[in-house]
Amino acid sequence: MASGKELCEGVEWRIRVVDGSSEVLVPPTGLARKVWLRTKGLISGLGMKVRMFLKQAWDMGASDPRKVIHCIKVGLALTIVSLVYFMRPLYDGVGGNAMWAIMTVVVVFEPTVGATLYKCLNRVCATCLAGFLAVGVHWIASQSGDRFEPFVVGASIFILASIATFSRFIPSVKSMFDYGAMIFILTFSIVAISGYRVDKLFDLAHQRISTIIIGTSFCILVIMLVCPIWSGQELHSLTVRNMDKLSDSLDGCVRQYFTNSNGEDDQKLQGYKCVLSSKASEESMANFARWEPSHGRFNFRHPWKQYLKIGASMRSCAYCIEALNSCINSENQAAESIKKHLSTSCLKVSSSSSSAIKELAESVKKMNKSPTIELLVEEMNSALEELHNDLKSLSHLLNPSTTAENQISATGLVPFMEIIPVVTLASILIEISVRIEALVGSVEELVKESEMKDKIVAKEEKPEGTMKALQR
Amino acid sequence: MASGKELCEGVEWRIRVVDGSSEVLVPPTGLARKVWLRTKGLISGLGMKVRMFLKQAWDMGASDPRKVIHCIKVGLALTIVSLVYFMRPLYDGVGGNAMWAIMTVVVVFEPTVGATLYKCLNRVCATCLAGFLAVGVHWIASQSGDRFEPFVVGASIFILASIATFSRFIPSVKSMFDYGAMIFILTFSIVAISGYRVDKLFDLAHQRISTIIIGTSFCILVIMLVCPIWSGQELHSLTVRNMDKLSDSLDGCVRQYFTNSNGEDDQKLQGYKCVLSSKASEESMANFARWEPSHGRFNFRHPWKQYLKIGASMRSCAYCIEALNSCINSENQAAESIKKHLSTSCLKVSSSSSSAIKELAESVKKMNKSPTIELLVEEMNSALEELHNDLKSLSHLLNPSTTAENQISATGLVPFMEIIPVVTLASILIEISVRIEALVGSVEELVKESEMKDKIVAKEEKPEGTMKALQR
Repeated sequence: MASGKELCEGVEWRIRVVDGSSEVLVPPTGLARKVWLRTKGLISGLGMKVRMFLKQAWDMGASDPRKVIHCIKVGLALTIVSLVYFMRPLYDGVGGNAMWAIMTVVVVFEPTVGATLYKCLNRVCATCLAGFLAVGVHWIASQSGDRFEPFVVGASIFILASIATFSRFIPSVKSMFDYGAMIFILTFSIVAISGYRVDKLFDLAHQRISTIIIGTSFCILVIMLVCPIWSGQELHSLTVRNMDKLSDSLDGCVRQYFTNSNGEDDQKLQGYKCVLSSKASEESMANFARWEPSHGRFNFRHPWKQYLKIGASMRSCAYCIEALNSCINSENQAAESIKKHLSTSCLKVSSSSSSAIKELAESVKKMNKSPTIELLVEEMNSALEELHNDLKSLSHLLNPSTTAENQISATGLVPFMEIIPVVTLASILIEISVRIEALVGSVEELVKESEMKDKIVAKEEKPEGTMKALQR
Repeated sequence: MASGKELCEGVEWRIRVVDGSSEVLVPPTGLARKVWLRTKGLISGLGMKVRMFLKQAWDMGASDPRKVIHCIKVGLALTIVSLVYFMRPLYDGVGGNAMWAIMTVVVVFEPTVGATLYKCLNRVCATCLAGFLAVGVHWIASQSGDRFEPFVVGASIFILASIATFSRFIPSVKSMFDYGAMIFILTFSIVAISGYRVDKLFDLAHQRISTIIIGTSFCILVIMLVCPIWSGQELHSLTVRNMDKLSDSLDGCVRQYFTNSNGEDDQKLQGYKCVLSSKASEESMANFARWEPSHGRFNFRHPWKQYLKIGASMRSCAYCIEALNSCINSENQAAESIKKHLSTSCLKVSSSSSSAIKELAESVKKMNKSPTIELLVEEMNSALEELHNDLKSLSHLLNPSTTAENQISATGLVPFMEIIPVVTLASILIEISVRIEALVGSVEELVKESEMKDKIVAKEEKPEGTMKALQR
């Protein structure tokens, strides 16, 4: 005879698993078992998360090996600079302050050459300036007697730190000297205050400056010689890539609308969103590119700011493509006959505008004026003309020669509401082509400015020739 | 008899100045004069620039006095921490490494509480972790003999620095621990390498950690007690402000189009551009707000991420307003009769949608569900209905009962091309109202989540009550 407990245990929960068989679900018994199950769950959850994280990291590294190279470069630079510690003469030369060289490498090493140069130059200049100023303040303080010394030093730190912090809010200072202002405060405070305890203040300032110069020199060497990544080159490629994306999205959207095909690559259609979101990275790259020496086809004073204007023009096109996209996905669908009526000219406009953008991308890529861009713009304008005519003739589809309303459906004419989406789409397309002309203008300006800069640089390189030309 | 030279000098260049009289332009004679004139020009130009710069700085300070307060706070914190240097017991306590406390204050002090807390916590945790790890590595290195010590230390630095640098590229690490990873590399390198020269390594690690804790504590005290600026509060106000701007722009644009008035405040009309460009600042604020303790009406785990969703919804409205603006400024002007026909309903749609946005702003501001928002959305929808009907009846203006083309102008009917701009405007307005409904949804979600969090916090504060409720 089974007891009550045994009976209860005789009932099992079964769950049908994929392969058709069923599995017994054993209820957990006892606290220990519960704890064990929960711990197991936690650990497997954690393991899953770690595996996901590692996979994400691996994918990132695989998709952009330059990031991995950067990490190896940082390791390399740090290891080289650590040698200073192991070599007694070098170590003694900087009075045991070799730590500052290491610190410099860690904080100034950035993925791109421009960012590293910006930090290096800011760090060196700000350290020198602050060092000299602090030695001066210390001299004044020491003249004012032991009693007032802390007050003079404290007041000078308070005033200079406040002013330097304030300057970091001013946009023009922020874009060029933000890091420098911070290092200025840092060095000034350290050197000025150390004067109170350290006897050889001048030595301290000297050591700090020389260790920082050692650190920055190592960084600049490593960043520029081992697989350098140039901010300018990155900005340039980003601009070209974004133009290609813009062109693909524009063409893809319109084609999808008129051919009703869902076969278009969704990633291609959404490409314009990259253009919308790349403002911040464009700005920081242009900022850093200004610090870079001439590299590849780019001279020292390449018109980087013009890339920001091109970016703004591209974004203004992308806003319109966003509006276009909303027409395409709108619930209010257009009549097929109207679509057919406008499809040829709309497709022509979109394909000619997108090939104009493609040509602009090519022109930026090669950094010379495209020979065919004018032709393409003309083609776009003639396609626009055609679209205008088609739009005008649209009223015939609406405007029956007979007045009887019940004949409307019989003659294949469509209600006004059903033409609205197509008309909206067409007028946004027209607006996009206006904005593309602005884009053409800004690309041409970039090419012109860059050619001008090239000439100036070429002249500066052979000044005798220029002088002779002037004397003639 | 005048000599040739005198004759030449007798000829003067005169320039007519504003008041009608003429002034003699004296040609510069001699090198000294030229240099003087050029120097004068340079100095006055420089003076002008400096004056402009100071004016800009002054305006910035006057428009946002909190920036000035922040600068004073930095000065204050630095001066307080410098006291450590002047007090012998404190100075000796940290073994002369008080410099690190100053360095900490300079680098972690940010304008907002969230950013400062993020840096402080990252710095303290990373320093502790790296310090212990470095002491461990040093122990292993010292066991492996004098010859291999530099290699073990060098290899460990290379490997850990590379891995930590790589982790900074991973988005989830970057948003939470970017600064921590840098400090980890810094502390690990310094402590591991110092092991080679410094005898009491444990003391060095201990001093570095304690000075950093002194520095961060000072910073946290000053930033939270003296006029604190909370990232969360800033994000909240930015969202409310942007909604108001969006609403003003939308209403202003449509009103300007239909009333042909140029009296609208241009700054108000362009307000939507702020919405377009505030993505980056919203993201960084939301990132920092996560670190802030409960303040004002915001609890510790306030749904800050929801603000980013609201921001994205607002931007999607702003893209449409940008397209709307291009309709308004388009060369292709619409016929007045058509404008008049649609003006009432369009104005109704725009004013009802903009008051819906205003109400949403109010709802976010007060952080509770608006009682009238449903009514306003209904109003917007009925205005849309009206616009739909007006659009439908538009075909009558186009669709004359007579077929003779020459009668078109006589009957006041307009060519199809002239209705396109208004139709486009109307359909963009319809799209905007669709997007506003999405905005309503995300604001409601924020309010709901924030109320839920409030309840959870209230429960956590009286856990006994909850336990009792569960036991019942």
